[in-house]
Amino acid sequence: MSKIQIGIVGGTGYTGVELLRLLANHPHAEVKVITSRAEEGLPVADLYPSLRGFFDLQFSVPDVAELSACDLVFFATPHGVAQAMMPELINRGVRVVDLSADFRIRDAALWSQWYDQPHSCPELLPKAVYGLPEINREVIAGAQLVACPGCYPTAIELGFLPLLEQGLVDAGDLIASAASGSSGAGRQAKVPMLLAETGESFKAYGAAGHRHLPEIEQTLNDVQPAGSAPAQVTFVPHLVPMVRGIHATLYANLKGEAGDLQALFEERFANEPFVDVMPAGSHPETRSVKGSNVCRLAVLEPQQRGKVVVLSVIDNLTRGSSGQAIQNMNLMFGFDETAGLNQVALMP
Amino acid sequence: MSKIQIGIVGGTGYTGVELLRLLANHPHAEVKVITSRAEEGLPVADLYPSLRGFFDLQFSVPDVAELSACDLVFFATPHGVAQAMMPELINRGVRVVDLSADFRIRDAALWSQWYDQPHSCPELLPKAVYGLPEINREVIAGAQLVACPGCYPTAIELGFLPLLEQGLVDAGDLIASAASGSSGAGRQAKVPMLLAETGESFKAYGAAGHRHLPEIEQTLNDVQPAGSAPAQVTFVPHLVPMVRGIHATLYANLKGEAGDLQALFEERFANEPFVDVMPAGSHPETRSVKGSNVCRLAVLEPQQRGKVVVLSVIDNLTRGSSGQAIQNMNLMFGFDETAGLNQVALMP
Amino acid sequence: MSKIQIGIVGGTGYTGVELLRLLANHPHAEVKVITSRAEEGLPVADLYPSLRGFFDLQFSVPDVAELSACDLVFFATPHGVAQAMMPELINRGVRVVDLSADFRIRDAALWSQWYDQPHSCPELLPKAVYGLPEINREVIAGAQLVACPGCYPTAIELGFLPLLEQGLVDAGDLIASAASGSSGAGRQAKVPMLLAETGESFKAYGAAGHRHLPEIEQTLNDVQPAGSAPAQVTFVPHLVPMVRGIHATLYANLKGEAGDLQALFEERFANEPFVDVMPAGSHPETRSVKGSNVCRLAVLEPQQRGKVVVLSVIDNLTRGSSGQAIQNMNLMFGFDETAGLNQVALMP
Amino acid sequence: MSKIQIGIVGGTGYTGVELLRLLANHPHAEVKVITSRAEEGLPVADLYPSLRGFFDLQFSVPDVAELSACDLVFFATPHGVAQAMMPELINRGVRVVDLSADFRIRDAALWSQWYDQPHSCPELLPKAVYGLPEINREVIAGAQLVACPGCYPTAIELGFLPLLEQGLVDAGDLIASAASGSSGAGRQAKVPMLLAETGESFKAYGAAGHRHLPEIEQTLNDVQPAGSAPAQVTFVPHLVPMVRGIHATLYANLKGEAGDLQALFEERFANEPFVDVMPAGSHPETRSVKGSNVCRLAVLEPQQRGKVVVLSVIDNLTRGSSGQAIQNMNLMFGFDETAGLNQVALMP
Repeated sequence: MSKIQIGIVGGTGYTGVELLRLLANHPHAEVKVITSRAEEGLPVADLYPSLRGFFDLQFSVPDVAELSACDLVFFATPHGVAQAMMPELINRGVRVVDLSADFRIRDAALWSQWYDQPHSCPELLPKAVYGLPEINREVIAGAQLVACPGCYPTAIELGFLPLLEQGLVDAGDLIASAASGSSGAGRQAKVPMLLAETGESFKAYGAAGHRHLPEIEQTLNDVQPAGSAPAQVTFVPHLVPMVRGIHATLYANLKGEAGDLQALFEERFANEPFVDVMPAGSHPETRSVKGSNVCRLAVLEPQQRGKVVVLSVIDNLTRGSSGQAIQNMNLMFGFDETAGLNQVALMP
Repeated sequence: MSKIQIGIVGGTGYTGVELLRLLANHPHAEVKVITSRAEEGLPVADLYPSLRGFFDLQFSVPDVAELSACDLVFFATPHGVAQAMMPELINRGVRVVDLSADFRIRDAALWSQWYDQPHSCPELLPKAVYGLPEINREVIAGAQLVACPGCYPTAIELGFLPLLEQGLVDAGDLIASAASGSSGAGRQAKVPMLLAETGESFKAYGAAGHRHLPEIEQTLNDVQPAGSAPAQVTFVPHLVPMVRGIHATLYANLKGEAGDLQALFEERFANEPFVDVMPAGSHPETRSVKGSNVCRLAVLEPQQRGKVVVLSVIDNLTRGSSGQAIQNMNLMFGFDETAGLNQVALMP
Repeated sequence: MSKIQIGIVGGTGYTGVELLRLLANHPHAEVKVITSRAEEGLPVADLYPSLRGFFDLQFSVPDVAELSACDLVFFATPHGVAQAMMPELINRGVRVVDLSADFRIRDAALWSQWYDQPHSCPELLPKAVYGLPEINREVIAGAQLVACPGCYPTAIELGFLPLLEQGLVDAGDLIASAASGSSGAGRQAKVPMLLAETGESFKAYGAAGHRHLPEIEQTLNDVQPAGSAPAQVTFVPHLVPMVRGIHATLYANLKGEAGDLQALFEERFANEPFVDVMPAGSHPETRSVKGSNVCRLAVLEPQQRGKVVVLSVIDNLTRGSSGQAIQNMNLMFGFDETAGLNQVALMP
Repeated sequence: MSKIQIGIVGGTGYTGVELLRLLANHPHAEVKVITSRAEEGLPVADLYPSLRGFFDLQFSVPDVAELSACDLVFFATPHGVAQAMMPELINRGVRVVDLSADFRIRDAALWSQWYDQPHSCPELLPKAVYGLPEINREVIAGAQLVACPGCYPTAIELGFLPLLEQGLVDAGDLIASAASGSSGAGRQAKVPMLLAETGESFKAYGAAGHRHLPEIEQTLNDVQPAGSAPAQVTFVPHLVPMVRGIHATLYANLKGEAGDLQALFEERFANEPFVDVMPAGSHPETRSVKGSNVCRLAVLEPQQRGKVVVLSVIDNLTRGSSGQAIQNMNLMFGFDETAGLNQVALMP
């Protein structure tokens, strides 16, 4: 079988190199073009020596014609970039998986409010499918434009999913206390992300309002039974002195008796290749998913006081971004959903 | 002025060496005895080269007569040890600051339930004063036996204090999502605490019930207005890949309008030498208190949705244990409360 | 093609789980038996959740009959274990790759001196082939017993190889200043390897004499031109506060003009699938080989003063142990040498 | 006694905040002025919350008149800045300790060659005293301008000192394999110093020639017996994934019999308050000097093969910069040399 041709826009960041890592051994896809205005002409393996021997590619200036010749284009860009190029690519019939935030929120006004800029192609928002396979697998398969979920939203939404779908908890009082490794801030020169600033320290950030909040609430509302009260999440992200990994600790109030929460979770995800419900009493560690596309979950009701706690871990660059993007690609092209994504996490 | 004579029982652990670090330059106290059965005869500076040049002491086998000759004895031991030696020391009139959990909980049955062993001297529990100066300063000054608060409880109680004292939040639905560096687990050979196991990873632990929970709830109940509903805390601790520091993220539901939370916190702690309320919008970092006795707090109500969030950081070994123990000592002996505790945190 | 059947003796340590990680997706091999006396009956995925979904195996007590039924047995044990079981396995015709130090040194007396115990089957030493493919590829293919090189030796020997083979440097005055992540110390409960002891710190250890020294000198002597002076290495290992990775900085005195060192290295390793000579001026980082079987090298002569410096990085668990073990297995069974070893390093 | 008035030029970097940390509790000095063009008007405690409660200062634009009113001015600036302001300050009679590289090298041409710019006031170079108290204590006391040694040079020079002074080793073949925490790179926004780039990794850098090399060789030549061959050092620095600390591993060839190296080192530093020779067989850890002004050394001759190895650790920001600067200040003003520098290292 011939391989599909892949274009990557914005390949110098961490989601770009993670796409390359995963695509290097993908059985059905091949990277044809990778763009970066700043690094035009630089071999990708010069930026990331880990890729030496795997890719012969050089970064090139984005060119719509070249990208349009691809079967699939990934956007691994900061927000605002994908929407600028999207109309042309969509018109030319290219299929796109956008790893950025540009098409995750259906309400353009809400998007503008959180991202401090107008949305330049709101008319494409209805075309965009939210790329969380556990809730949108079929629609993704037929989509031309997939908006790949954010890293925190992936961990948080998967953790709340069974509870919200069944209407078991008070959706108006949800708490997501989450923590991320520093690769989540991207490969940008910023003093606060220096090792000398973030090493050996832990802190919250964006507690007053993080951009992933409206995305999380939109998805939780989507999965609730019709007529439910709107989901309201208090979301506090934290920065962990490590490179990769997201851990979300979720708190919700049970409306009635808990029932068998462990069974609920196990059944909900029984057929999901990339969600692993751990045995009762487990505490998933982020390292158990390092470099892997798996989300590991645990659920408990501490001391049976009516408060359910869900622990959810992902690798922010794999399941939280590039791995999930490839999972979406696999669905869109009818490949085995796990193709190229069977890496065992690097532990220890 | 001559210095008071200090005895330290159980000096090989991290709270032991932290006591030594802080006492090395204390103007009014001098370490006379430090015990360890396992390391009898070993100079303390052989175990901790950081102490070379500061102490000429050797570890000795605990001896009641020797300890009784001290003005103050610190217990820096695992739970269960202090209570075994306490009656004799108390009878001899020695003053004691116990850094372990043995005398923190007033209800012996509750203690037994959480610590899986009977309490061997429940008759001394009423004598024990809970050593959180911000609520017990005067009683501490006159106490013979001070139970130094746990590390998580210190960070969590200080953060909830102004809200609970004023009855502003629903005490029955409090959440404490907290994270600690690995020195909190002590200096014991355990596979799960190896760097190769905990490095580059983040996880919750003890989510079903951590021993610090009853201590936290006891204190929060103590500070509530009479007649309040019992405090109920969902407490989930996490392990951060760093050596020192505790960060607590606290969530509570406001009963009514928030009022000026920033002013409330600033006023409550205005005269406290070791609580620092950060400016509105701050996110305290654990590194800002590394090696210091200060607790830094920030308070906010994200998006004015009725949920108050408090961020609280301490150094688990300093304010969370040995520094607070010395603060208690200072109060007990009428020294300046800050004597020996004026270190600037090591940042970066 | 049916897969060969693999037995692993001593599967609970880091080299054991690394073998499982790499074999999980190996096209020609399948793990049949994995032993651990201490963890008999425990599913391997309970010890390492990263393996959930990949293996259905349980640890079992080592049984010679069961192991003899395998095509290949890996020993991932502390030194001393493999030699105890080896004679019986060898007699039964099983092929073995020993990841421990038991059969690396040809001189039994020398082995005893460094490992503080007699060697229990010196008669098998002549059968053992030192499993460094870059020097022994053909012999490995036909070997029954392969002694997989140590982690430091792999990084150091590959770095010195081109210089020693050509007799370009004074073999009697070699320096190897090397540094390892803490997984090199294994999964054993030891206070000095706690994160609280090794985090945020750097130190040398074993400077007076590390067990890998005689192995290194033996190999360097093997590759020297006949009649050369004996190789003498000053080897100082250091501990880095990270989980994986070895970095060796090698120093040697050029006997004459350097010639084109870059070309020398590039040519020597041109056909080696797992040695990557970086462009002149590079400084290889350990993260560039994290989880990968590649050794990356750089060579330079600072300020043309006659001192050559080689920088060599490997992942201590992959190329430094389990990855190289599988590379040896591939050679022994005529598989593609890179089968199952094409992982891209996890970067960042 | 009234306190001397201190000015700090360039206070936003790590050596600036470290000066503030150490001066906060200095008995004889008080910071009057701290400058930063970029942060004019910002309270220092806003940049470094660790300083809250200790300083009421704001950053101000550098003003010669204001600085001249101080008893001592510290330059905590990148190279090139101090030399631009120095003539005016020197003319006005102010005493200066320059933490930058501007006045460390006596040969202006050599300085220019390594720092890629002309030296703007070579006429002041003869006035500058190299601020390593162990070799220049008396001259420092009377100096107007002290050039504080670099971080690597401090660790390396102290380690080689006894050997070079006695002419025991071949000065023409010295090796310094050293490693630094990332705070050594300063508080500047650079991609390679992000935690996501440097965390969990180890690498050499500047192997072809680091700017500290000529400084090291100059000092080693200074301390050699007259008529010795010129010191030649192969210096390879490495980056450790930690915040603070420098470790130098030094290698040299003994000219004759070693003699009692341990005694040599102990005697040489017997009266030095900030050099600690560890017992034979020790491996000093960087954490044992974290936040302290002490340099800890160990010396050995592995296997008596004629190669001496010295292990040397300092805190790069304390003994490697700001602590040593204050030690120089103490000498210049006749204070106790250890005033304000008696911190116990933060361990663990």
